[in-house]
Amino acid sequence: MTSTALRTDRYELTMIDAALRAGTHDTPSVFELFARRLPDGRRYGVVAGTGRLLDAIAEFRFGPEELAWLRREHVVSPEALDWLEAYRFTGTIRGYREGELYFPGSPLLVVEAGFAEGVVLETLALSVLNYDSAVASAAARMVAAAVGRPLAEMGSRRTGEHSAVAAARAAYIAGFGASSNLEAGRRWGVPTMGTAAHAFTLLFDSEERAFEAQVASLGAGTTLLVDTYDIRRGVANAVRAAGTGLGAVRIDSGDLGVVVREVRAQLDELGATGTRITVTNDLDEHAIAALASAPVDSYGVGTSLVTGSGAPAAGMVYKLVARKDAATGWVSVGKSSEGKATVGGRKQPIRALRGGVAVAEDIHVEDPPVEALGPDAGRALHVPLVTAGTLDERWLGSAGVAAAREHHAAAIAELPADALRLSRGEPAIPTRYL
Amino acid sequence: MTSTALRTDRYELTMIDAALRAGTHDTPSVFELFARRLPDGRRYGVVAGTGRLLDAIAEFRFGPEELAWLRREHVVSPEALDWLEAYRFTGTIRGYREGELYFPGSPLLVVEAGFAEGVVLETLALSVLNYDSAVASAAARMVAAAVGRPLAEMGSRRTGEHSAVAAARAAYIAGFGASSNLEAGRRWGVPTMGTAAHAFTLLFDSEERAFEAQVASLGAGTTLLVDTYDIRRGVANAVRAAGTGLGAVRIDSGDLGVVVREVRAQLDELGATGTRITVTNDLDEHAIAALASAPVDSYGVGTSLVTGSGAPAAGMVYKLVARKDAATGWVSVGKSSEGKATVGGRKQPIRALRGGVAVAEDIHVEDPPVEALGPDAGRALHVPLVTAGTLDERWLGSAGVAAAREHHAAAIAELPADALRLSRGEPAIPTRYL
Repeated sequence: MTSTALRTDRYELTMIDAALRAGTHDTPSVFELFARRLPDGRRYGVVAGTGRLLDAIAEFRFGPEELAWLRREHVVSPEALDWLEAYRFTGTIRGYREGELYFPGSPLLVVEAGFAEGVVLETLALSVLNYDSAVASAAARMVAAAVGRPLAEMGSRRTGEHSAVAAARAAYIAGFGASSNLEAGRRWGVPTMGTAAHAFTLLFDSEERAFEAQVASLGAGTTLLVDTYDIRRGVANAVRAAGTGLGAVRIDSGDLGVVVREVRAQLDELGATGTRITVTNDLDEHAIAALASAPVDSYGVGTSLVTGSGAPAAGMVYKLVARKDAATGWVSVGKSSEGKATVGGRKQPIRALRGGVAVAEDIHVEDPPVEALGPDAGRALHVPLVTAGTLDERWLGSAGVAAAREHHAAAIAELPADALRLSRGEPAIPTRYL
Repeated sequence: MTSTALRTDRYELTMIDAALRAGTHDTPSVFELFARRLPDGRRYGVVAGTGRLLDAIAEFRFGPEELAWLRREHVVSPEALDWLEAYRFTGTIRGYREGELYFPGSPLLVVEAGFAEGVVLETLALSVLNYDSAVASAAARMVAAAVGRPLAEMGSRRTGEHSAVAAARAAYIAGFGASSNLEAGRRWGVPTMGTAAHAFTLLFDSEERAFEAQVASLGAGTTLLVDTYDIRRGVANAVRAAGTGLGAVRIDSGDLGVVVREVRAQLDELGATGTRITVTNDLDEHAIAALASAPVDSYGVGTSLVTGSGAPAAGMVYKLVARKDAATGWVSVGKSSEGKATVGGRKQPIRALRGGVAVAEDIHVEDPPVEALGPDAGRALHVPLVTAGTLDERWLGSAGVAAAREHHAAAIAELPADALRLSRGEPAIPTRYL
């Protein structure tokens, strides 16, 4: 188990140090993680990373190595080092389920703990949720654009080697069917896929020899990459090597709208009517939508997916929204900085529905109990994630990912029909503070 | 030590399986890692990640857990599992030094090994170099825009929690002076910085009380964040709390060009003439350039830096360029796919210089020895990274990062003056295949 504790901005620790000295470190506090806006004219966002964050919180410990380094670098005082050494998160976190949709202001996580205990999780929580949600939000748009055709995530090589695993996981939650990333398979139960690259074809004296070798190893049901030299000859070689029972051909270059139709006709002529066509050439949601009428059977998406398709970070922030004053009780707080003002107070979010269709994101400020809102208020969006320091097991591991994927599909089904359009627009439903 | 072996696309392993079956897995092969083009009208790119990649190669082992999962999932045959179990990279890698500049086609890594031994590193090598180089390339532009003023990397919260550490490292190599990320300090020797967030101010009954608490803990030389409520009152409170010896104020909102001048005037009026001003509000290289005439003392950059400022992946690829045929010797290979053709053959890159100024990226194909090119050909760009499986220690750890930072500064100094312009343009020097 590797400590996650130093994946943290230095100022979290210097704030703890100063709060300890001032005696304010244990002030009961409420922090909120939310996005001020959706990026780039998007109509909804998708929450992802929650299960990963819970794991990271469990491993958030300042061990001997972390403490020795902090001491040597004089990052904080000896008193603060003692406090960090004893650190365990003992507070409570509730929040949106992983896979849930979100809108501007949605209180995605509400962290209740002493000030120091809560503030120190800021960097880690944002790193995980900002990246994973950026990928999931892009993935959901690609799934919508593919209108039922399967999608595979193939972007590991276009993002950091750890982010690659997170991206595969986030895309799967948002409806992708598989990933090329083996670690995502092992760690999170994401189905993995992939057969061969151009290098394999180039390793042999001829394309046909390479295809024969691949079929000998992976069977005729494999996918052959047919564009190393000339696509028409490649398709002919593929059917010659595998027979008409060939599983699929993959095309990774050229003008796909044109090429795919030619390849389909050629496969059919050759009798390979059941052979599928998968395409993988620099796709994003718009390129996928443009192929809707082409005889494509599945898509593989790389760069644009793992970089959030134009919005590589979700823009979420983590803010103190309330603290308990010894004299006067709970006080809502929020900065008033220009263009970055924060709505203070503990919040209870509800997705208002009419006839099963989402109509608003209702954010009840000052946190009334859900029961007080009555059964018609809508679907309560918060679930317990951590209760008095104990993680909720439902959201962890492969089971958590499977649950998130299922929940995402249900949440998407509640959206009004035009929410799935790819064009730039307003959020699909308004956020109302109540 | 965590194995990095499954941070790999499935198809790398299925290719190995098929090559083993065909008896071609040990074919002596040359793979090349390069970028076909620079993103987005950029004039140069910056190589980063090399030292991290070498570490990851050292940890690239299929241990019992990895093998058990591959077996259970039937990813490859039992013969391939045996081969993977014995895997150690025993080949040779030479390449561009970390921190070096690159241009379209620059052969950044040349990997010589048996086919299977070399192909299996593809995903990992690309993940590391594509992300780290994207950040370093953006960082270098910001450094140019800041014309000597110091820059700090503060984007940990806007990228995956592991990528955050890599980003801090890459930015430092490209000339940033510090990072907020503690793990980057511990792991790579990057200087760390940071004092307090808005939450700290909101924790107290008044801004002045918060500033007093921060100064009590961090000293008057600290940086106070003055825009939680009203900047003018914030500056007054800051100087009241810390005295005229206050180290710096930080401004994180508003129209910085205007605000910074007002704050400078106010600080000077109050006698805090030595107090510096640091700004951190959604900066990128263009915003930094726009502040050139404003009295800013330093910049903190987050989102745009860690997401590559519009180019979040460097677009590098990893291709088989030569293989040894038992009968005919070395054969150059390359796919001819539309728009993605590859120049085959082992390559020797030289930066041609005239009077110390770079004039071309000369790529000698078929790899003549450097000596044969004569002393006037320019600066040879390849250094040994791995020799017969042994890592070159010079590029590892904090010492490797420091060397890369130094080398980067020297390489930038060779560029023609207009190469540092931020506007979209052609590569600063042409790539010539010789």
